[in-house]
Amino acid sequence: MARNGDENCNASDSNVWRFKGNGATSDAAAVTLRKLAFGMFKNCSLNSGKTVLFPTPGEPSASPSFRTCPEAEEAVAAAARSGMANSYAPSPGILKARRAVADYLNGELPAKLRAEDVYITGGCNQAIEIVIDSLSGNPSANILLPRPGYPHYDARAVYSGLEIRKYDLLPTRDWEIDLEGLEAAADENTVAMVLINPNNPCGNVYTFDHLTKVAEMARKLGIMVISDEVYDRVVYGDKPFIPMGKFASIAPIIMLGSISKGWVVPGWRVGWIAMNDPNGIFRSTGVVQAIEDCLDLVAQPSYILQEALPDILEKTPKEFFAKKLKAMRRNVELSCERLKDIPCLFCPKKPESCSYLWVKLDTSMFDNIKNDFDFCTKLVSEESLVLIPGVALGAENWVRISIGTDESVLEEIFDRLKSFYGRHALSKKAIKFNGHSITQKGVSVI
Amino acid sequence: MARNGDENCNASDSNVWRFKGNGATSDAAAVTLRKLAFGMFKNCSLNSGKTVLFPTPGEPSASPSFRTCPEAEEAVAAAARSGMANSYAPSPGILKARRAVADYLNGELPAKLRAEDVYITGGCNQAIEIVIDSLSGNPSANILLPRPGYPHYDARAVYSGLEIRKYDLLPTRDWEIDLEGLEAAADENTVAMVLINPNNPCGNVYTFDHLTKVAEMARKLGIMVISDEVYDRVVYGDKPFIPMGKFASIAPIIMLGSISKGWVVPGWRVGWIAMNDPNGIFRSTGVVQAIEDCLDLVAQPSYILQEALPDILEKTPKEFFAKKLKAMRRNVELSCERLKDIPCLFCPKKPESCSYLWVKLDTSMFDNIKNDFDFCTKLVSEESLVLIPGVALGAENWVRISIGTDESVLEEIFDRLKSFYGRHALSKKAIKFNGHSITQKGVSVI
Repeated sequence: MARNGDENCNASDSNVWRFKGNGATSDAAAVTLRKLAFGMFKNCSLNSGKTVLFPTPGEPSASPSFRTCPEAEEAVAAAARSGMANSYAPSPGILKARRAVADYLNGELPAKLRAEDVYITGGCNQAIEIVIDSLSGNPSANILLPRPGYPHYDARAVYSGLEIRKYDLLPTRDWEIDLEGLEAAADENTVAMVLINPNNPCGNVYTFDHLTKVAEMARKLGIMVISDEVYDRVVYGDKPFIPMGKFASIAPIIMLGSISKGWVVPGWRVGWIAMNDPNGIFRSTGVVQAIEDCLDLVAQPSYILQEALPDILEKTPKEFFAKKLKAMRRNVELSCERLKDIPCLFCPKKPESCSYLWVKLDTSMFDNIKNDFDFCTKLVSEESLVLIPGVALGAENWVRISIGTDESVLEEIFDRLKSFYGRHALSKKAIKFNGHSITQKGVSVI
Repeated sequence: MARNGDENCNASDSNVWRFKGNGATSDAAAVTLRKLAFGMFKNCSLNSGKTVLFPTPGEPSASPSFRTCPEAEEAVAAAARSGMANSYAPSPGILKARRAVADYLNGELPAKLRAEDVYITGGCNQAIEIVIDSLSGNPSANILLPRPGYPHYDARAVYSGLEIRKYDLLPTRDWEIDLEGLEAAADENTVAMVLINPNNPCGNVYTFDHLTKVAEMARKLGIMVISDEVYDRVVYGDKPFIPMGKFASIAPIIMLGSISKGWVVPGWRVGWIAMNDPNGIFRSTGVVQAIEDCLDLVAQPSYILQEALPDILEKTPKEFFAKKLKAMRRNVELSCERLKDIPCLFCPKKPESCSYLWVKLDTSMFDNIKNDFDFCTKLVSEESLVLIPGVALGAENWVRISIGTDESVLEEIFDRLKSFYGRHALSKKAIKFNGHSITQKGVSVI
């Protein structure tokens, strides 16, 4: 507020105020990617001259060629003008949107979803929030999260008082899950495991065989699988994406999704929770009730976006996705080629999905860069280039490079990385070269 | 899910599943108006023939004459088509929206809000969620809520583990706050009081003198005032609406608002939190930090609505509001006139704001209606008319009638109420008439 024009200003300094901010929010928020990314972004202003490079999905300046399709934009415009999206929506979402999502997902599922098995949420992040909250309440419960992973799960688990246990993804095995490690991390208080497929940040998709093993392990442990499939429409490799719901007869599956990534509209905030459970386990264990109660307590997605969702899902031409995936294939090739000029960064597996390059950082090639966070911080202040340090995703000395952007921006990203490397790298002789040893134990111990 | 086509269906019945739903969500959700209203609504289907009357703001079928203005619809359509609203928004909201809300509120405020003092939320309900969460964390803290009041405060306080203490609104004093009762309810663990002005459900607006007393009481108690001003554009009586921010130099004020009521678009889900605090108390007590951390953890409002917000606030013609308020004045007169035919319902004060008639129910005129909840439940199943029982708002044997609807719908509402009363009322002789005694102690003891 303006500090002026108020004669009472000093008066209340003497008053005793009995309230204070909730400290618990800081502990949870500190983990979020939003806080880190926008925090990094702020440091760009310290830099002299260079335009800020912060390629985020949907950022119009950074990637006009990744703009969403007119059909999606028109669906929202029509909903806003219809007068049918002005009143309060029911907490689980409007029926036509729930049915449209069920239809969208049912194609490949053996046990079909009904509209009532789907809940509409404010993007996938709110789906995570609701599912995590709905599993909390028992102070000794724990949840298994992937390392590397998406930190919103960690943040919400911290906020809900759910103990976090990590399992590793194995770079030497196409980023498959270390199932032995996962089993070892679980105990009788484990309630769920989170699977991210297609995988952010690693860029892999899981095979039918591996997902079968995951479902069988979940069944053995007596836990549910929360399958984050928000990148289901961003798969451009040879392997097909397989929805986890296919295995719902082995263990109950909650699939989370959104239009954010497939339609490149993360700002629109509409997603879903889909309960794949032919055996009715979610109902008998009170999970359905907890989720429906939680939906009464949290902010609802805009009715306008819910009203538009069926047309967005049904009327978007295949060509829109084909064009985007072609561009991603090109970007992956370009990025991997350009990476050769930057020996401190190594990509163990060419991505086949999502919009990132997940690369190992070799700090031994520098004398003045301690770790991935130090690397990204100096990169921001010297090159105005925002990359996500691996530590934010649970893996120290890795870096996530967003490549879902225009070719020219991509070239600029690697130009800046190269000049940064050139300035900071030790001379070849000086480098005590330690290669890129990656062990079966996964990235966590590298 | 479909129970068929899955040979493994029975297999997992024997399995031990270690997860269960979070019971704490039920306790909190049980309090919400959404759960109650939509629960009541479902019962309409039990009824034979009659069309359902569930007049909710923005419901197109119920109130075409209360449809929002084309300028607002076009602002959203333009935002959707702009391509500028596709990426993630910063957690506190986009700057242009925060600035537009500050400008919208600053007119009457002595100490002006800066854009940074405003946070954009998913409607006023999410503003409530964030503010309550940000004040929680201390298990012995308590908050003062009005009786009658808006139950989302109760639900979120229960969910956040914040003790609820009620203060009364006094029907014999134009629904002013019982400040003595409020002071008596407070102690050294009280952190805040919630004020709803214009008042839902009572329909009054508070005078400058009364708000001054409220601010001085808050200062005396060392608490903040959370002022819910979501109905600031729905004031049609003689008294002007006075924003609580005017008194921020006496005690720190958080003003909550939204376009939901003024523009009749509760489904759009965009609102705000405005920190009125010329003395910087919210910052020094960590409240600002807690709110900003909380914003990183919860679902953001759609960027499309944020992008549209400045045009909605700035380009809506005065005539839109004038027409709406004129219709409300007409509806109030009509409703109070029609109420005379229904002696079991008594309105102690003609509303000057909001879109409700808040009426006392005299159960002594019936032999088979126990209380307000029983009254509303039977009304739904016999007349397919959904009214909100006072108990849901904290006041037993009161009823909230929505009158923000078309004249024809309004007539139908009172026709059904009259025929319901006619069927259930005891004969005049049989009525042990006990008048409508309303004491200084407020509605809670009536």
